[in-house]
Amino acid sequence: MESVLLLIENNFEDTEALYPYYRMKEAGFGVVVVGAKAGTYASKHGYPLKAEKTPGEIDVKKFKALLIPGGGAPDRMRVIPEMVRLVREASEHGLVVAAICHGPQMLIEADVVRGKKATCYASVKTDLVNAGAKYEDSPVVVDGRLVTSRVPGDLPDFCRAILERLSRG
Amino acid sequence: MESVLLLIENNFEDTEALYPYYRMKEAGFGVVVVGAKAGTYASKHGYPLKAEKTPGEIDVKKFKALLIPGGGAPDRMRVIPEMVRLVREASEHGLVVAAICHGPQMLIEADVVRGKKATCYASVKTDLVNAGAKYEDSPVVVDGRLVTSRVPGDLPDFCRAILERLSRG
Repeated sequence: MESVLLLIENNFEDTEALYPYYRMKEAGFGVVVVGAKAGTYASKHGYPLKAEKTPGEIDVKKFKALLIPGGGAPDRMRVIPEMVRLVREASEHGLVVAAICHGPQMLIEADVVRGKKATCYASVKTDLVNAGAKYEDSPVVVDGRLVTSRVPGDLPDFCRAILERLSRG
Repeated sequence: MESVLLLIENNFEDTEALYPYYRMKEAGFGVVVVGAKAGTYASKHGYPLKAEKTPGEIDVKKFKALLIPGGGAPDRMRVIPEMVRLVREASEHGLVVAAICHGPQMLIEADVVRGKKATCYASVKTDLVNAGAKYEDSPVVVDGRLVTSRVPGDLPDFCRAILERLSRG
């Protein structure tokens, strides 16, 4: 079974993790939830999600995509070098890298948006532009294997674009 | 009485607003709390703080300093153009501009850190550097009238530096 990675930390935006989690499964992918430490993380509203793996246990070459939800989670993830390294490796190895809302903060930290078209939550826009991205205010922006969206309401467009990009190999 | 401005939004880090609030008063300054809308805002832990003024009611030339606490508040403030404009005007008119923790996100948004020495919470470092600041990992960094700190534990150094800078006029 082909699989994707879903990065997790406390304070993740509930739907931005849980909707892609089930949507990727519905499409036939395995979903491996990755946290800095093994254990259960809580969403903004307290919904629990278990991290099955830590970054050191992941060989990105065995995965097709890496997904980053928003909320307060990316602000916490971005100070953990192993989590940032995983994003950089996923990008370097040609995985589909997808981030929504505050998720692009991890793309900034991994320095994988320079010269790329991308979008994000409004509060992250200036940081994304300063990191060298070409910002677009669209529900979903696809540049190569980079897929980005702005808010929970973009989730249908976000997941459709991820699956479409994956279907092209 | 000489006065200072304290910017506020929901989810502010409790001590980073409340300690400077009382410390400035103890030193003899009036403190005007400014929110995007008049009303009461809640800290991360639910502590209420009332905004007496909105940005449109403020003439920065009548104030000596502008203070920005951290927590989740700056991420909310930075998408409100009137709040960002207030920071830019304060900087242009030579007020002491002081930000702690995530507060420097507002300095990034107002584009007032380019070429300046500054510090911030670890998760904001890359964004501060991308905005053109010279990042330093110190409890407090003073460059001209810009004063920045990293975490609540830096509050004594932060307030001492603000008051010292204000005493030099």
